[in-house]
Amino acid sequence: MTVRVGVLGATGAVGQRLIQLIDPHPDFELAAVTASESSAGKSYREAAKWRIDAPIPDHIAEMEVVATDADEVPDDVDLIFSSLPSSVGAEVEPEFCEAGYVVSSNSSNGRMDEDVPLVIPEVNADHLDVLEVQRDERGWDGALLKNPNCSTITMVPPLKALDEAYTLTDVTVSTLQAVSGAGYSGVTSMEIIDNAIPHIGGEEQKMESESRKLLGSFDGAEVHLHDMGVAASCNRIATIDGHLENVWADTADDVTAEDAAETMAELPSIDLPSSPETLIEVFEEPERPQPRLDRSLGNGMTVSAGGFRETDDGVQFNCLSHNTMRGAAGASVLNGELLAEHGYI
Amino acid sequence: MTVRVGVLGATGAVGQRLIQLIDPHPDFELAAVTASESSAGKSYREAAKWRIDAPIPDHIAEMEVVATDADEVPDDVDLIFSSLPSSVGAEVEPEFCEAGYVVSSNSSNGRMDEDVPLVIPEVNADHLDVLEVQRDERGWDGALLKNPNCSTITMVPPLKALDEAYTLTDVTVSTLQAVSGAGYSGVTSMEIIDNAIPHIGGEEQKMESESRKLLGSFDGAEVHLHDMGVAASCNRIATIDGHLENVWADTADDVTAEDAAETMAELPSIDLPSSPETLIEVFEEPERPQPRLDRSLGNGMTVSAGGFRETDDGVQFNCLSHNTMRGAAGASVLNGELLAEHGYI
Amino acid sequence: MTVRVGVLGATGAVGQRLIQLIDPHPDFELAAVTASESSAGKSYREAAKWRIDAPIPDHIAEMEVVATDADEVPDDVDLIFSSLPSSVGAEVEPEFCEAGYVVSSNSSNGRMDEDVPLVIPEVNADHLDVLEVQRDERGWDGALLKNPNCSTITMVPPLKALDEAYTLTDVTVSTLQAVSGAGYSGVTSMEIIDNAIPHIGGEEQKMESESRKLLGSFDGAEVHLHDMGVAASCNRIATIDGHLENVWADTADDVTAEDAAETMAELPSIDLPSSPETLIEVFEEPERPQPRLDRSLGNGMTVSAGGFRETDDGVQFNCLSHNTMRGAAGASVLNGELLAEHGYI
Amino acid sequence: MTVRVGVLGATGAVGQRLIQLIDPHPDFELAAVTASESSAGKSYREAAKWRIDAPIPDHIAEMEVVATDADEVPDDVDLIFSSLPSSVGAEVEPEFCEAGYVVSSNSSNGRMDEDVPLVIPEVNADHLDVLEVQRDERGWDGALLKNPNCSTITMVPPLKALDEAYTLTDVTVSTLQAVSGAGYSGVTSMEIIDNAIPHIGGEEQKMESESRKLLGSFDGAEVHLHDMGVAASCNRIATIDGHLENVWADTADDVTAEDAAETMAELPSIDLPSSPETLIEVFEEPERPQPRLDRSLGNGMTVSAGGFRETDDGVQFNCLSHNTMRGAAGASVLNGELLAEHGYI
Repeated sequence: MTVRVGVLGATGAVGQRLIQLIDPHPDFELAAVTASESSAGKSYREAAKWRIDAPIPDHIAEMEVVATDADEVPDDVDLIFSSLPSSVGAEVEPEFCEAGYVVSSNSSNGRMDEDVPLVIPEVNADHLDVLEVQRDERGWDGALLKNPNCSTITMVPPLKALDEAYTLTDVTVSTLQAVSGAGYSGVTSMEIIDNAIPHIGGEEQKMESESRKLLGSFDGAEVHLHDMGVAASCNRIATIDGHLENVWADTADDVTAEDAAETMAELPSIDLPSSPETLIEVFEEPERPQPRLDRSLGNGMTVSAGGFRETDDGVQFNCLSHNTMRGAAGASVLNGELLAEHGYI
Repeated sequence: MTVRVGVLGATGAVGQRLIQLIDPHPDFELAAVTASESSAGKSYREAAKWRIDAPIPDHIAEMEVVATDADEVPDDVDLIFSSLPSSVGAEVEPEFCEAGYVVSSNSSNGRMDEDVPLVIPEVNADHLDVLEVQRDERGWDGALLKNPNCSTITMVPPLKALDEAYTLTDVTVSTLQAVSGAGYSGVTSMEIIDNAIPHIGGEEQKMESESRKLLGSFDGAEVHLHDMGVAASCNRIATIDGHLENVWADTADDVTAEDAAETMAELPSIDLPSSPETLIEVFEEPERPQPRLDRSLGNGMTVSAGGFRETDDGVQFNCLSHNTMRGAAGASVLNGELLAEHGYI
Repeated sequence: MTVRVGVLGATGAVGQRLIQLIDPHPDFELAAVTASESSAGKSYREAAKWRIDAPIPDHIAEMEVVATDADEVPDDVDLIFSSLPSSVGAEVEPEFCEAGYVVSSNSSNGRMDEDVPLVIPEVNADHLDVLEVQRDERGWDGALLKNPNCSTITMVPPLKALDEAYTLTDVTVSTLQAVSGAGYSGVTSMEIIDNAIPHIGGEEQKMESESRKLLGSFDGAEVHLHDMGVAASCNRIATIDGHLENVWADTADDVTAEDAAETMAELPSIDLPSSPETLIEVFEEPERPQPRLDRSLGNGMTVSAGGFRETDDGVQFNCLSHNTMRGAAGASVLNGELLAEHGYI
Repeated sequence: MTVRVGVLGATGAVGQRLIQLIDPHPDFELAAVTASESSAGKSYREAAKWRIDAPIPDHIAEMEVVATDADEVPDDVDLIFSSLPSSVGAEVEPEFCEAGYVVSSNSSNGRMDEDVPLVIPEVNADHLDVLEVQRDERGWDGALLKNPNCSTITMVPPLKALDEAYTLTDVTVSTLQAVSGAGYSGVTSMEIIDNAIPHIGGEEQKMESESRKLLGSFDGAEVHLHDMGVAASCNRIATIDGHLENVWADTADDVTAEDAAETMAELPSIDLPSSPETLIEVFEEPERPQPRLDRSLGNGMTVSAGGFRETDDGVQFNCLSHNTMRGAAGASVLNGELLAEHGYI
């Protein structure tokens, strides 16, 4: 079965990555690309300033961009990927759901809403059924599924492994984030060459809340947030792709550095096209993972971890993922696959 | 009074910064520059591959480099600055002290030795008298004073302010360190362009132990380490100068973000030529301090701080200092001034 | 005598550098700062996002920004520095001149106009009298003086030295330009990290035409362009400040590498406050000058040169200058000093 | 037929790229890896500090490294790839040829020797028969084939296209070269962050001589160098991979920008496994090609060109290639394929 998909915000940085992933996808076929009014009517080639280091597929380059409006997208589109600025997403995504579309969204709006599932398929696929509650409450034919923020996605699979085995009590995390996470024009060159920025607006709050939802439990009616404490500090550095994070995880049960590494290495992947063979690649070398060397593991969908050291109350380690693949476009595509697998499409 | 000084390891990265600071110094006069055997006999210009973005002073360029040996340095030199690889320092520094020289050293060897004072003048000048114990025990006419590691120096003044007012219990710190901290050839371009390295060998241990000694108390006989816990994670990023650090400080007494900022802003500087007017520059803007913009405050001797947020157990903040100035060469020069002020020279 | 000055476009990248230069200037006193309508009425601190690595002077921070309009600037302002986008400059600068202000402008509009002098004081101060022609033709009480584009300024002093001694016939130049030349937001981080851009819109044309005007001759009535051929290729690279250029200069008379270097080293500076003691610093080391190491020579006003090699038809060499100092703000200030010296104020 | 191959200097930067290319190669099978004495006996994993952003193939990681000595390499190895420092290559490569091995070498020694063919298969495959002269003169059973320097390879295919159609008279070239061209430790981070280096020792001479040999004609007895003049200026910038070059090509016959672009786009590739479908990718956008965006075209084997402008005497343009693929490892592999195709193995 081929699922016909549309991409909202297709000309942006994440939108381009979505195109790049959908084009060769075994189950998805790109049927609509949307952008702001000013781009409507143009060819995708014209509207998108293509910045990915692989050529834009020709047949996609020729597609006509339509405005981001449920009326403009063909009815036979089965699945919508959304990568809109959150203020736009907050307005438009419900309209698509209302109109019957199933939406897998990377936009940050609504992620913490009680009836919106926030999912990383390998971590909390069981939260998908929050969609039943959502449909009940909102009366939608469609559905709205969110993936978390790129910096949250990076640390949650490793934390999931630790939580299952040793029960997390407190998490402290410092991030070294790539500029692509801010979009194509989000960070100027004068801001970042020979420099670092120790603040990313709203990012710390996202990491602190989203991680507790992802590791929370769903009882069929609502998601109970994990009661661990989470404290984050977010930095922008001069890397193109790949978020690197230093994590201190305090646990209820004793854990050694070796055990922590092993439990992460053993966290299983799942059987979806975009899920990598190895979910968490564990490095023995203390200086790995590194953004440029390790962000592309598993087609950019593998999370990597290393630098394990025991602390007084748990373990510290570093982790990394490709922020526009595992952390954004790939996360949405994977959620789209999960929706298809579970019959929501 | 003019103090005649010598620099051990004068051709290295920190050695060059020492030269740059000593040349215009009101009280110091450069009388000897040493390097390894292979450079002995050459002019300083020839021996040093000068990499500082200000020209090498002409009269220094013409000085003859001698081997790093107490017999090679004129007897009328009063004060020695040492910036040697730690393995060399461990061997050579005691020989200079034995021969009667007073040594202000930036090398990492011996920093945690019980009878070696580890001092940041604005933080723990009272530890200087550990030198009395040292002379008793080692029978030296000279003396050996150490400044801490650059990453430790960055966070300790802010922590000192918090500890005095609120008593520290636990510190967690993540660093984003500049490449100059590894010396001129310490980090290759292929390692760091579009990349970050989440490990600096031995650095985490230095931060964890040295900070407890600096904030410890000296009872006239020995230094009692502060009993706070310290957990560090050290990263190298693509900045030339300036170590940026994310700190979480847990305190025994309650502290607000505002109070933390204020107590740092009020930590007094001291009356020595290299001590800056403002010891800690506190920023209100959450995205400051930043390495390129703020490392040169107070001639590179001011520490800056910002990004204050309350946490469950204390406060989190960011701090920054110029790693080869406040964190290395400037730290040694300042300690030299302290030695002169206290009559050790 | 103190000259009261105003800065048009004071919140931009070059505007901030102008402020930084004017504040400590021995002869100039800042009396007005202008920006776009949306900033009018705000304090300069509020309107300018200050990005220079030295604090904004307090008394300037408190100044009120006015709209860029001749009616808004006090009449007792004697000299205007302009750093406006060229489209704005083309409209506004003539209005200021009409209103009687003397304008030293860095904006690119009108640089090649026949009755507008384009001047680097150390190179072609005699062109200043084009202002007589200008006043005749335009009936202005004020006057409009231009400095050239930053990439042109870098190579013209070295070329001037060669032209005087050996007569230039053809110049080929390739540039490696810093991101600050495009303004604060001109180059995104995603465009330039691990990358270079081999095109800067309009820049090649500017270098090709402006250099011929600067090295042209003024006969009292008009400037005759130099008849050398100039071919430029302009590249943006990941440096903050400092334009580096590879130049091939073909000459009518034979020239050796040694002679070329010597003639540049001997090109005299002039007696104005901002003109550096050494106009062209000549390096013997073939790998110099380099942007980060050499851009700040002579307070950013010295041009440096090196890498001399003889070619079949002349000589090739590299040159460098600080693009926002010698190449922009400093160039305008220097031209302001020239205007004052020659009685135009 | 499977060719058994050995790699000399297999642990270096180019050596690792060679391994990466040979492992999946349809016709080559890796049978020996050599390195310096100190690495002999170690596993390849142990000896090589693997720095490529793809994992080291497991079966290769387990191979035992032998010393770079013809006696240490199995006799049934048919083809040797050499990526040795030129001083080592000069000594060792002739020993391998003497011992009967056919060597495709990337090392710079001997490239301009009259009886050593210097070949880019798509440009001057006919020079391969210089090997007949070589065998006659040196009495070797083996053979020594060279590929040119990475900066030369980048510009020669575009120049070949122009020369065939319009006859080159003079070439001026300025390069912006990636750090990987200097080997893993060749450029320190302190040298290149926020900086550029306008000199690469020996590089200019290589470009000036090798390009004339590659575009020269072989009359069956000797190669006559092309009589065009070539003047090069070589710069190192902060890119990981990809050499970008600004070229001015003077031609005997008139050429328009459009014609130049077209003639390059039409230069044919050849039928060897590593030769890309499109030899020269021509961009219409003036700001392309760019290193990070375009270096990987055609698996890193496509040269790209753009920015065409007519000049007084010909045309100027920019070109780019992946310096460790098309410019080094890929060049050697392609030459190995040519040797096989022409029966030298």
